[in-house]
Amino acid sequence: MTRLVGIDWGTTNLRAFRLGEEGEVLEARSDPRGAGGLTPDQFPQVLRDVAGDWLASGCAVMICGMAGARAGWVEAPYVFCPAGPEDLAAQVVQPEDGVAIAPGVALSADGLDDVMRGEETQAVGLFGPGESGVMVAPGTHSKWIAVRDGRIERFRTFATGELFAAVRTATLIGRGLPEPGADDAAFDEGVRLALADPAITAHLFSVRVRQLSGGLDPQGASDFLSGLLLGAEIAAAPAERTASVAIVGGEGLSARYARGLALAGFTSVRVAAGETAAARGLYRIWSMMK
Amino acid sequence: MTRLVGIDWGTTNLRAFRLGEEGEVLEARSDPRGAGGLTPDQFPQVLRDVAGDWLASGCAVMICGMAGARAGWVEAPYVFCPAGPEDLAAQVVQPEDGVAIAPGVALSADGLDDVMRGEETQAVGLFGPGESGVMVAPGTHSKWIAVRDGRIERFRTFATGELFAAVRTATLIGRGLPEPGADDAAFDEGVRLALADPAITAHLFSVRVRQLSGGLDPQGASDFLSGLLLGAEIAAAPAERTASVAIVGGEGLSARYARGLALAGFTSVRVAAGETAAARGLYRIWSMMK
Repeated sequence: MTRLVGIDWGTTNLRAFRLGEEGEVLEARSDPRGAGGLTPDQFPQVLRDVAGDWLASGCAVMICGMAGARAGWVEAPYVFCPAGPEDLAAQVVQPEDGVAIAPGVALSADGLDDVMRGEETQAVGLFGPGESGVMVAPGTHSKWIAVRDGRIERFRTFATGELFAAVRTATLIGRGLPEPGADDAAFDEGVRLALADPAITAHLFSVRVRQLSGGLDPQGASDFLSGLLLGAEIAAAPAERTASVAIVGGEGLSARYARGLALAGFTSVRVAAGETAAARGLYRIWSMMK
Repeated sequence: MTRLVGIDWGTTNLRAFRLGEEGEVLEARSDPRGAGGLTPDQFPQVLRDVAGDWLASGCAVMICGMAGARAGWVEAPYVFCPAGPEDLAAQVVQPEDGVAIAPGVALSADGLDDVMRGEETQAVGLFGPGESGVMVAPGTHSKWIAVRDGRIERFRTFATGELFAAVRTATLIGRGLPEPGADDAAFDEGVRLALADPAITAHLFSVRVRQLSGGLDPQGASDFLSGLLLGAEIAAAPAERTASVAIVGGEGLSARYARGLALAGFTSVRVAAGETAAARGLYRIWSMMK
């Protein structure tokens, strides 16, 4: 019996979940038609293509992510921190009967500092009523989301992946470096240096000096650079060392973040499944829509 | 009467000075044949081409910069901090009779952290025996050099210009932004934010958020980004706010650094001529070679 169809509609793809009576995932699908490539009038058809059979019974649809952005299906304005499932539920927009799109979350009312769309739903899926912890979503734009008693208290986005790629693409310091992930010692040294002194532009120059002096080979330089950027991210992240941290990301990247967090003294770190978190968050928000 | 010919031989060009009895600059020339484009055997001819007439009287030649790098004319090893003109003079290499190349300076004996070639000579030119201050050389790799009683005590290099260019070239955050320099308010805000919290990768993301929210137009985003990177540089620089700071760089960039330093509370900042500083430093080092 399908209780709800949940959609995590990102920029470059979407993931759809058929959820049962208690919000459990009965079935999951993905599709490459992300919100970034669609005009507003195309969303209804994509929804039918992806989940038409699930919807035949007439159940509701709960959507999070970029479908609610300005250039998405219908714009769902941001809610401000602190924000729990009830706050998100109160601000959904409904492009059709039975279809709700969750708002994004902005750090503060001026909307200038930081925003997200989609990760807030994963976070409230990971940490339910009464639960506290930090969700870390590494990637092009890494997000750290601090949840207290089931509500998102604050969050911060770091352009870590984007900056790493730019350094490898467009600087003499990084050009030609291989993918990171093979030199743990160099990675660890980068993390430690940046934790102690998050002066990224100075450390970037030292990547070059260490290569010229023979102190680092190209693989070491790549891992050192990766560690530096992660160390600087951890140094500025909104998380206590004793927080319960859940990392939601690809396998290799999540393992590297777990390693960096351990080096930084975090005592409770696990790798969690992002899909499950999104599905649970969609169900929680929808449950509050009464 | 020519006492010394001084050459500041950089990677992409060289500047030559004819110096008089007291080290005063009698004449100056520049040439595009930087050390980066020369094989070791080509240096003598370039020297004759550029300064052959000055050398007819048989005076000595003092060189600093990349001519002393591994791939230069002859390698001049690094000396370590603290280093004054007498330490540099003690470690010159002499590829020919009457021609001396000054060593570079490394921050520490392992040579891993930070190195320079050329700026050390400007710094000991700016701050003579008994003088103390900080030389700031903004650019692709900005250098801050702290001098105490005429000796270089420590220094730090920031890949600020290179990172700014990479963000403009290779990220969605920066792509298409114009040259900075037109929006002082946005620049000031970037400086202040990064001084208070030098979390560059987080601030980078906020450049994007502010553009999407309409808080910054492209010009403002460029100046905000420029201010952020400068603020982070100042936050980590080896300089007391009360230090006597001399900025050595191009006109526009020096003015921006002066503005940023004033915002950060520096009380004694001037813009100095890099050529004069190099000439004076070359003369000082040469004077110690006895």
